[in-house]
Amino acid sequence: MSTQPVPGPEVGPSVPGGDGAPARPGVSRRGLLGAGAAGVVGVGAGLVGGRQLGGPGSAVAEPAPVAGGYPFHGAHQAGIVTPAQDRLHFAAFDMVSAEREDLVSLLQDWTAAAARMTQGRDAGPFGATSGPYDAPPDDTGEALGLPPSGLTITFGFGPSLFRLAGKDRFGLAARQPAGLRRLPHFPGDNLDAERSDGDLCVQACADDPQVAVHAVRNLARIAMGRASLRWSQLGFGRTSSTSTAQATPRNLFGFKDGTMNLKAEEPGLLDDHVWVRPEGAADQWLAGGSYLVARRINMTIETWDRQPLREQERVIGRTKATGAPLSGGEEFSQPDFTLKGRGDEPLVATDAHVRLVHPDQNRGVQMLRRGYNFVDGSNGLGRMDAGLFFIAYVRDPRTHYIPVQMKIARGDGMSEYLQHTGSGLWAVPPGVQPGGYVGQSLFTG
Amino acid sequence: MSTQPVPGPEVGPSVPGGDGAPARPGVSRRGLLGAGAAGVVGVGAGLVGGRQLGGPGSAVAEPAPVAGGYPFHGAHQAGIVTPAQDRLHFAAFDMVSAEREDLVSLLQDWTAAAARMTQGRDAGPFGATSGPYDAPPDDTGEALGLPPSGLTITFGFGPSLFRLAGKDRFGLAARQPAGLRRLPHFPGDNLDAERSDGDLCVQACADDPQVAVHAVRNLARIAMGRASLRWSQLGFGRTSSTSTAQATPRNLFGFKDGTMNLKAEEPGLLDDHVWVRPEGAADQWLAGGSYLVARRINMTIETWDRQPLREQERVIGRTKATGAPLSGGEEFSQPDFTLKGRGDEPLVATDAHVRLVHPDQNRGVQMLRRGYNFVDGSNGLGRMDAGLFFIAYVRDPRTHYIPVQMKIARGDGMSEYLQHTGSGLWAVPPGVQPGGYVGQSLFTG
Repeated sequence: MSTQPVPGPEVGPSVPGGDGAPARPGVSRRGLLGAGAAGVVGVGAGLVGGRQLGGPGSAVAEPAPVAGGYPFHGAHQAGIVTPAQDRLHFAAFDMVSAEREDLVSLLQDWTAAAARMTQGRDAGPFGATSGPYDAPPDDTGEALGLPPSGLTITFGFGPSLFRLAGKDRFGLAARQPAGLRRLPHFPGDNLDAERSDGDLCVQACADDPQVAVHAVRNLARIAMGRASLRWSQLGFGRTSSTSTAQATPRNLFGFKDGTMNLKAEEPGLLDDHVWVRPEGAADQWLAGGSYLVARRINMTIETWDRQPLREQERVIGRTKATGAPLSGGEEFSQPDFTLKGRGDEPLVATDAHVRLVHPDQNRGVQMLRRGYNFVDGSNGLGRMDAGLFFIAYVRDPRTHYIPVQMKIARGDGMSEYLQHTGSGLWAVPPGVQPGGYVGQSLFTG
Repeated sequence: MSTQPVPGPEVGPSVPGGDGAPARPGVSRRGLLGAGAAGVVGVGAGLVGGRQLGGPGSAVAEPAPVAGGYPFHGAHQAGIVTPAQDRLHFAAFDMVSAEREDLVSLLQDWTAAAARMTQGRDAGPFGATSGPYDAPPDDTGEALGLPPSGLTITFGFGPSLFRLAGKDRFGLAARQPAGLRRLPHFPGDNLDAERSDGDLCVQACADDPQVAVHAVRNLARIAMGRASLRWSQLGFGRTSSTSTAQATPRNLFGFKDGTMNLKAEEPGLLDDHVWVRPEGAADQWLAGGSYLVARRINMTIETWDRQPLREQERVIGRTKATGAPLSGGEEFSQPDFTLKGRGDEPLVATDAHVRLVHPDQNRGVQMLRRGYNFVDGSNGLGRMDAGLFFIAYVRDPRTHYIPVQMKIARGDGMSEYLQHTGSGLWAVPPGVQPGGYVGQSLFTG
């Protein structure tokens, strides 16, 4: 699929089907785009002419950005400090092939498809409706006519890719970073293996869920025979802003979430807390990358909703209305953990969430959170299967996630209303350069 | 909750908490709205002054429409011919109380909350952050600051509300319409009881999933002790346009879906096919109402995606690119079922979906479809749990749905790629008048 030349004009005149059927015009996704047409035509002009497109290792110039699209190539992968989009489709994959070359070719093919789809184009060069009539289309078609919708696709490598049950599956064991180990058991964890871990992960974020779903579906299709979908999760209503241009959204507790989050506009803090600092030969390939922690956190919202406003605010340590710390001020005021009120009790309770996670209480560490709300129907007891699909990007999970989560699991008043049902940790390789593929530094140099 | 007076200005000056805590400003959802502020202030002005709001049977003037909000009151319920919004949260409830008065009070309370929420307001008069500090808030808060987002809430009554295992539970058996019977078993059905049926249904549609989820969650909360959530389903990317102003969207087969759908701009056809024509005493209360058929239809998209474009188009009977019938023309051309091609085979195959569902092949019947795509993660075999949550509004399921679905289940080439996993039928009462409540005609007159 990926080594075939691009057919001439993708929006061409009607051509006879040649089998008695009427003319069947070929229409590609970009041909259907309206607003982005100008930029898109430029892209097309650079691609026609028999050049190979997006094949393994082929040198393809980065397409000009299209309206509503984020560049795919760069020093870091998109989807980390990109302003959080509204919708998420997160997927974990397991390798079904044991061959290293299949892993490499998969990453190459995923790279080519991701570079296309993030620009609002079909997953493959023929697209959903062109190409040989007697072959399956190389795009599934449900995003035809939809703009890029801010789609970003971010890839990660799980611990099991490097070593599984002691076995070096792909000759990568010597390059397993010391920080990339399965997360420890935290008190109260009730993890479902079918919602946890995975050799590879894909985070697709977009402002249109159909675009995010389309991306994961086409990557799963491309993986066939090499990797298989292990689990996936949809999310909506981002729970953390990652840019100062975004207002702080609310989680399903009804509280603002992410007031203290790291922001794209703070490069110094991102260097300190998000981008990996390699320690040696094993993780040199991860320079410019990060670690992605995912936790599926169910909220017992029916119980929460029966709590008095006073109790809800005490648990969080902030007001529900504005998000101001209970020690006073407005949303972005720093909490004062020393202030006391009636009965000499601290205004911000000792087990309040805002206190336990504050950098001052955690040796200065911060995370870049990028979580989403989820509702996956309801269980047989009439309760919604709902909560927060927590995603955080950190420099090192050993310093930036595990100690904080251990503290929350042991002492946070909020834990009473939470149950962690899924978990995963992945190393997120650096960004892709034109002509390269995602994770290339792991396999070369 | 619903009989308490509205507190004075809902966005007031900071007031001391009175317990050593700092000032705790009360903020209601409407106070946080930006664009709709002008209309919203008008609404507020009409409500303050100690008037009771939205209590059972209370006479409340309909609030002025707000930006992004559809009127709640009218001859028909909103959410049927309303231009289909982008997101769905559908929920089915079972009564846990056996008392008729609990059913009536539930419908009254739901009416009051729905009238508020569809205008971008909190579910209850105090809202998420005002009201007594030692009581649970009467709104859960996650929609604070969000506009109405086109929210509509549509209610329906299932067969089991009238008669369950032969028992007349609420004194309504004599008013069970003849058309309101559990749907028959169709060939190939593989229904999950936990995704089917229910005494009551709620269809919440909005352009923001957080607003639709908020609506269902707050209605479930209000129902506590009277009715309990039986199941719920999220959907996205409407699969059928219901207005000529909307482009035809695509389903997860990648094809345009709903080209032939009934449209809001066709009142004559809506009268013929959507609005109930009462037959007698049993269904007189349903005048101005409709029937809602819901079917959770899983698509085996991995299998579909391996089919040649030719086969996909043969099964549907339309081109994937433009949606034109295979007999020629463009999307909105009428298919010609008599035209033949090579080998004297009809261009539109005898088992093509477009042929089987066409009104000309079904004694002229049409449906108003209002379905949504869904993806609920994946199963243990690496396949997405994905498909179409089919919703149709019809005048009478005996003439307008059951025969068509029986034909599809028996003879449609598409059925090979489908599995029906959920099902439900509800009678949808007429619209609510100011001061009334949803379904009132069922209990009075």
